[in-house]
Formats: sequence, structure tokens, C-alpha cells
Amino acid sequence: MTIRFKPIGIIHTPNTEFNNSPIQSSRSSVPGRAVVNEEYVEGLDGLEGFSHIFLFYIFHRLNSPLILKVTPFLDDKIHGIFATRFPNRPNRIGFSVVRLTKLDRNMLFFTGADMLNNSPLLDIKPYLPEFDHFMPENIGWYQDRKYE
Amino acid sequence: MTIRFKPIGIIHTPNTEFNNSPIQSSRSSVPGRAVVNEEYVEGLDGLEGFSHIFLFYIFHRLNSPLILKVTPFLDDKIHGIFATRFPNRPNRIGFSVVRLTKLDRNMLFFTGADMLNNSPLLDIKPYLPEFDHFMPENIGWYQDRKYE
Repeated sequence: MTIRFKPIGIIHTPNTEFNNSPIQSSRSSVPGRAVVNEEYVEGLDGLEGFSHIFLFYIFHRLNSPLILKVTPFLDDKIHGIFATRFPNRPNRIGFSVVRLTKLDRNMLFFTGADMLNNSPLLDIKPYLPEFDHFMPENIGWYQDRKYE
Repeated sequence: MTIRFKPIGIIHTPNTEFNNSPIQSSRSSVPGRAVVNEEYVEGLDGLEGFSHIFLFYIFHRLNSPLILKVTPFLDDKIHGIFATRFPNRPNRIGFSVVRLTKLDRNMLFFTGADMLNNSPLLDIKPYLPEFDHFMPENIGWYQDRKYE
């Protein structure tokens, strides 16, 4: 069983390689621009009211074979891929919460870009603290990570 | 251009229909269980250290045609699909942050189930406040929604 997804647009950012890109949107002030295909423009109605939105996209630049144990960017130890946010995973779905600075018809201007240039856009959803704030008691290896 | 994703497992919950399911995991204390396919078990190593995790899955029970303007569960007004979390969207990717209560080899027991029974599992990622907490100034229509 496989599921097919069709990109709804594309994300333009100045990030050309993983090793010169911010790690996580929460640590990024880099501007980006998402261009939504014409056929979906109507679906953006009301999005301008939200200051923070989720962008879902594909980690499209990975051709490396899948490895289930990885060393994430912020640690020097090996962890299971699902215990990390590392991009090279079985289904290469990325997401970033970004600050929407302007919606101009089918173009979303934002800051907080951590994704690579030309990432295929899959979905957009509003960020809502009531839905998206959780208070974990435990954050695993991240608590004792090597790098800031 | 289409992208193929292959589920890595399946999510079992008591939620059989949208209209008897919790709206958002943050409002749910319903228990669920995700079963990861044998070939990916190694990738779960270290996940047990996290109290809160993202589950990504497919809204698999929708056969309705795509509509770009919808009335979400918590309002009586019409909004663009991308300004809502409504499941019937161009790419039917769902995500929920749930509380991991037990990891038993390839089985993840959790609370906070808001997804339907037998949702195909696409990915698992750890939830980290440093990456996932944002403080929006504006939350659009949700601020003035009709229903709690």
C-alpha cells in the first residue's frame, strides 16, 4: 500500500544546503516565500488572520539510503530515527512553524525558514496554542544533548 | 509530480467516526496504540525517553470530493481549508501530539487519541518545546469562533 501526495506549491528560501541552513524554524529568522498553485488559492481565505502557520513539505533533496539509527545535528550519540527530527526518514515529510508576514493572493511571505530552497509544499495549517502547546515532562536525549 | 509515501504502521483507537471523536489531541484523554511494522523497529530506539510525540498519519476515511472552503468543527462560518485543521484537504496528512505511556518493542501505547481507528501511520517525531512552542499574536477566526 502506498499513498500518493501531490504538491500544492513550492517553497523558496535562501537555504541551499543542509549544512548552511538553520536547525529548526524556532531558531531561524530567515525569510522565505511559499507559492501556492492557482487551483488552490481559494483555500487560503482567512489564513491572513494567523501570525503563525505550519508548512508541510517534502525533504526532497535526500537521495541517501534510509538508515534507522542516526546521529542528529544537535548530538554526538546515535538514536533511532523516530526519536529525532533528522530529515532522512522512511517518509520524508517535513514541517515548520513559520511567521506569516504577508499573504498576497497565492504568495505567502514568512520568516523562520529552515527548509531547503524549492521544497515541494504539501499542506498549510494554522498554529493554535490551544491545540499545539504541550508540556512534556521528558524530552529524552535532547535533555543531555552535546550541542546547542 | 506525485510523491509516494508508504505507511510504517497503523494506529488503533476507539474512534470509529469523525462525529464521535475528540476534536484535537489536546482535548483528548482517549487511549490509543500505534503498531510499527517490524522492519522499522530499530528506528524507535530512544523514543521511550520522550513523554510527548508527534504521530503523522493519513486521514484515510475520506472519500468526499475536495472543497476549498469549509465550515470547521468549531465555527459556523466558512473559511479556506488552509486556514483550518479540517481533515478533507488536498493532501490528507494528519498529525497529533500524544502522550507516550509505554513503548513495548514495536507497540506505542499513548493517550490523546483523536484520530480514527486504523489510520495508516506515516511518521513519528519527538515533541520539543524549544522547537514547537510559538506565541502567536493572531489566531484568526479561532479568536471569534462560535463553539468551544
